[in-house]
Amino acid sequence: MSDEFYMNLALNEAWKYQILTYPNPAVGCVVLDKSGKILSIGAHKKAGFLHAEPSAILLALCEISDDFLHKFILNYDQKFNTNFLDISDKHELLEKLKEVYLNAVFTYDFIMQNHGDLLDGAKAYVTLEPCSHYGKTPPCANLFVQLKFAEVVISCEDKNKIASGGISILQNAGIKVKVGVLKQDGGMLLKPFLSWQEGNFSFLKVALSVNGAATGGVISNETSRAHMHSIRSIVDLLVIGGNTVRIDRPKLDARLVKNGKSPNVLIFSREQKFDESLPLFHVKGREVEISNSLLRAKKSPLVMYEGAQEFLNLAKNGALPNVKWLLLYQSSNFKNEPNLLSQIYLKSVFRSNFADDSYGWYEIV
Amino acid sequence: MSDEFYMNLALNEAWKYQILTYPNPAVGCVVLDKSGKILSIGAHKKAGFLHAEPSAILLALCEISDDFLHKFILNYDQKFNTNFLDISDKHELLEKLKEVYLNAVFTYDFIMQNHGDLLDGAKAYVTLEPCSHYGKTPPCANLFVQLKFAEVVISCEDKNKIASGGISILQNAGIKVKVGVLKQDGGMLLKPFLSWQEGNFSFLKVALSVNGAATGGVISNETSRAHMHSIRSIVDLLVIGGNTVRIDRPKLDARLVKNGKSPNVLIFSREQKFDESLPLFHVKGREVEISNSLLRAKKSPLVMYEGAQEFLNLAKNGALPNVKWLLLYQSSNFKNEPNLLSQIYLKSVFRSNFADDSYGWYEIV
Repeated sequence: MSDEFYMNLALNEAWKYQILTYPNPAVGCVVLDKSGKILSIGAHKKAGFLHAEPSAILLALCEISDDFLHKFILNYDQKFNTNFLDISDKHELLEKLKEVYLNAVFTYDFIMQNHGDLLDGAKAYVTLEPCSHYGKTPPCANLFVQLKFAEVVISCEDKNKIASGGISILQNAGIKVKVGVLKQDGGMLLKPFLSWQEGNFSFLKVALSVNGAATGGVISNETSRAHMHSIRSIVDLLVIGGNTVRIDRPKLDARLVKNGKSPNVLIFSREQKFDESLPLFHVKGREVEISNSLLRAKKSPLVMYEGAQEFLNLAKNGALPNVKWLLLYQSSNFKNEPNLLSQIYLKSVFRSNFADDSYGWYEIV
Repeated sequence: MSDEFYMNLALNEAWKYQILTYPNPAVGCVVLDKSGKILSIGAHKKAGFLHAEPSAILLALCEISDDFLHKFILNYDQKFNTNFLDISDKHELLEKLKEVYLNAVFTYDFIMQNHGDLLDGAKAYVTLEPCSHYGKTPPCANLFVQLKFAEVVISCEDKNKIASGGISILQNAGIKVKVGVLKQDGGMLLKPFLSWQEGNFSFLKVALSVNGAATGGVISNETSRAHMHSIRSIVDLLVIGGNTVRIDRPKLDARLVKNGKSPNVLIFSREQKFDESLPLFHVKGREVEISNSLLRAKKSPLVMYEGAQEFLNLAKNGALPNVKWLLLYQSSNFKNEPNLLSQIYLKSVFRSNFADDSYGWYEIV
């Protein structure tokens, strides 16, 4: 199989956590053993937690060594009061370890101390150049060196002055490095990160039935909505139109995710008066601003516009500052409701499914 | 990685050729070497040509041995006047071999005579029990035995009396067999085959803009339309509504595929008179029937309904005989056109992309 095949697995895994890693970039990593067998697919899931490389490396070590796996969960349970030991099925346990946010420092150190050269000669595919800086943990590039990886294939170089330099670390240690595999795809994955680093990444979220309707009650399924809530939980500002607030009376909270943080809301409206009983005004710890200016949106690093016809029109006319991407949730059901009308052309950036719903990131062209 | 991971690769590959293998089932196969490295992903592409198992096995042998690859293309070029030898890049050559229809008998025999035990101890994932019958070629199950595979993982057993028995052949030869991995998904893949074997598989094809419009000029991109034409090329009958014929004046041919066969057409209409200058009447080698009865559709084994609002309504009311599946091409562009209206609920069966377009098979629920 080609390098592109494996890099694609890493990219797809990273996309699952797009935006959710804010302010970090979304990164994915695949680890193969020295014979070329896939051991693991990992991603960075949330800022402050494990990077993609130690995530994939941890899963790889657990996959090949039951002793390593057992020792890791034993120590992790003791330190963090988790219950990994209760899961007896190995497959289920690996899925769990893949899904949860693991402590970065403990896990990194545990890998460094317990890897037992099990990944000697291994190969990794990483969507972004491994970092070279000391943050919460030492550099990811050091992990590959310490564990004696033979080769690291990278999609995009890191232009970030603080974190770049990973390639040099790898090469100086004699690791074979190949850069630029699916470079364009790797670049698209990084775009939101590069954009908010420069001050702002804004996008428009729309939910539609398969036949383009945005009205007539709930559209998306529970999984789509939970994903939406996890994104709400991470953005600096949610912008919503005045009409939507009046007609739909949305709460705009993040109740479908554990410890979800309800976002601050900017109601974009000429009219400054709203019924104070509206649910969105009564969400704890949230600020609401009502304004006919989008200045605050321009100044916030990560902004989601939630809307339908009105915002679609504004986006088409370039009137939503910096909105170049659309996040579309689309159900597989037809609705007896009229569709949103527009002539917006979209270029697909990434698409996947939440059960029967599909969702995708699109560039507005 | 889990068995499900590899089976999923086989299933996705098979889905690419859904319907196109008619009257054979769509089948996918993945081959791993004895250390667990993925060597190839293959599928059955067209009746009369290579089955999924020899396709994947051929690609696997070519992947691991340049000598085998060279000898194969040398012999194939000589025998069939192809030009594989002109392709110097190995990756490109493997892609080409994966994509073309290879002669079944020659390739099967070539594998049997030249495998050199290169796949001794290998593992295969097959979406359907390997066949045990002598058709154009000897049984696929024999290939695994002859090549000394260690393990074969199967999604679905074959209930077909002629072809089943593959599992026994494998087990009697001492090959480890695991059955039922992603059984439900494997079952969905087989449904059209099982259905036309019982007399009829019918489905409705619809093309929509992302906002649900089916009007206002061409909707799907070239890749979607080529796929559609390859399906037209294989169906026994294409059913179209009288209004669509009058308004859209479609040609309904298969011009976008090489050697495409234009399907016979049933115009479903109360009105029996149509303008004889309509393009669809002037396609070579095609029969056109105009009828207010769908009897012919009921009696044909593989039938595609192409339509929009009218057929969607009929499908919802169960008035299109045996139409339980919908094939939806959806562009990523918004159109300033009204949408199709319906309350049809769909369950996603398989979805993928053709560049910016998406397409999917859905069950009508």
